[in-house]
Amino acid sequence: MSYPTRVTVTEVGPRDGLQIEPVFVPTATKIRLINDLIAAGVRSFEATSFVSPRAVPQLRDAAEVIAGLDRSTGAKILALVPNPKGAELAAKAGVDGVVIVVSASESHNRSNLNRSVADSLAGFKDIVDIARGAGVDVHGAIATSFGCPFEGDVPLASVYRIADRFAELGIQVIGVCDTTGMATPLQVSRVCTAMQARYPGKTWDLHFHNTRGLGLANVLAGLQAGVGHYDSSLGGLGGCPFAPGATGNICTEDLVHMLHEMDIETGIDLGKLVEAAHSLERTIGRVLPGQVMKAGPRLTLHACDAVARAVG
Amino acid sequence: MSYPTRVTVTEVGPRDGLQIEPVFVPTATKIRLINDLIAAGVRSFEATSFVSPRAVPQLRDAAEVIAGLDRSTGAKILALVPNPKGAELAAKAGVDGVVIVVSASESHNRSNLNRSVADSLAGFKDIVDIARGAGVDVHGAIATSFGCPFEGDVPLASVYRIADRFAELGIQVIGVCDTTGMATPLQVSRVCTAMQARYPGKTWDLHFHNTRGLGLANVLAGLQAGVGHYDSSLGGLGGCPFAPGATGNICTEDLVHMLHEMDIETGIDLGKLVEAAHSLERTIGRVLPGQVMKAGPRLTLHACDAVARAVG
Repeated sequence: MSYPTRVTVTEVGPRDGLQIEPVFVPTATKIRLINDLIAAGVRSFEATSFVSPRAVPQLRDAAEVIAGLDRSTGAKILALVPNPKGAELAAKAGVDGVVIVVSASESHNRSNLNRSVADSLAGFKDIVDIARGAGVDVHGAIATSFGCPFEGDVPLASVYRIADRFAELGIQVIGVCDTTGMATPLQVSRVCTAMQARYPGKTWDLHFHNTRGLGLANVLAGLQAGVGHYDSSLGGLGGCPFAPGATGNICTEDLVHMLHEMDIETGIDLGKLVEAAHSLERTIGRVLPGQVMKAGPRLTLHACDAVARAVG
Repeated sequence: MSYPTRVTVTEVGPRDGLQIEPVFVPTATKIRLINDLIAAGVRSFEATSFVSPRAVPQLRDAAEVIAGLDRSTGAKILALVPNPKGAELAAKAGVDGVVIVVSASESHNRSNLNRSVADSLAGFKDIVDIARGAGVDVHGAIATSFGCPFEGDVPLASVYRIADRFAELGIQVIGVCDTTGMATPLQVSRVCTAMQARYPGKTWDLHFHNTRGLGLANVLAGLQAGVGHYDSSLGGLGGCPFAPGATGNICTEDLVHMLHEMDIETGIDLGKLVEAAHSLERTIGRVLPGQVMKAGPRLTLHACDAVARAVG
């Protein structure tokens, strides 16, 4: 079994997790959450979105959040932007990079961004120009790369269409996103191999949701394909807009636990992550789906007089 | 990515799941659960334990459960037995096979079975003789093969010591069990490869718990090592005696969903499994950890006018 010896984890909970929570998390709490994770060694964040406050009121404090972050460690602070105005605001707020996103499936892009895939692709040039003009990096993300909740399977050609455009725009980091948890390990293996062959030299970032329990199995398939960048959400914060009770993003501390136990470095202190996850759970006021925060890392030892009735 | 094209799933929820539930599930409900799963195409069960009713009161109705099962499909009905008396009772009840279990770690065996590993190994001959004398098959299971909650890492030599004894006794099916969810994919790969080399021709059955979120990633590693038999529990029924709120066995329908989506046959109807999981959830009276029962299979499509705010 071969895979990278070092992995970069991008914490997306403050964006992908909080945007779907029913409550507005206070700005100071968001800032403390991210700064605690920076202190734990996380060095990449999707910290917020510069989107319409009407569309995503939970993230209406994007600029204030960015202003409060500890920039001393060089942790890369990214924000999602849907349009040139968002890019301007993000650059003004002082992000290191913006993430531009489009879905590989037409209906999801229309539902999510209220425009066609062609219009999204046509609009990226202005965003990229604004960002780069301000010295801000641009990452590209391809939503519904492994399936669309409206259309089902998504042809690889639809993913290529977007990656082609990202490549034309000179974007180096491309996120391949399993937006609603439809990826399987076999598919991850096939898609990663195909993308690496078609776009040599790019940096791939895999974004998995654990909606159907396959999140970390998909990470394993990604690792085996040689991919070294993964998105995750502290505590597994978030959910799925289509299935009440289903989980969303893969859980950061469960991911880091798996990586460390496979001798893969992340630079992250797992104990501090778990503390931050418990703190986040108190903030959100409900049990988060993270597993290591409940069971502890695998070498958490117990006293032998504990009641142990599990016999198999 | 290569792996078996067909997998045998052994449903262990009626034994490994129910034994840790605080409530006694009525005998008729247990029988209906197993018979519903037989109707769904499951062909292997750890249906109950013939253990002391004082030790595991939840399974005190073992013989009645066996008596109520549909045997017309040839589904293999196994029961766990800790001693010769259990083997006699299981054989009399009409099981197809008994499972004998011992932990690879001394302290877990003492805590779980109240005897040393050496005493467990010495006692197996009588159990095997009773079972075979009654025409009943014997499977061997090695608990804490991937780690012990009291001792931590378990040396492979301790696992070999038990497998050696099983091999001496002519046991064909050997379960390698991650009793408290400590296995990682790297470890699964290493242990499976080592066991297959040392004991050629044996049938390996992997028993994973999802305690730290790694259950299906470990299955993927097992599949890649060529292992074609897995234990799981409907709905993820069960838990972990050491961590309140943590999950136990991997979930049957999540496992079957993953296998089918990787073009691996199981002979099982996923829709019927999910129905049975919902029924089980009503019986148990709490939300089960299964994910596919909440989100549906990956190609569950939604109307495009659904609110979709997840943008990445």
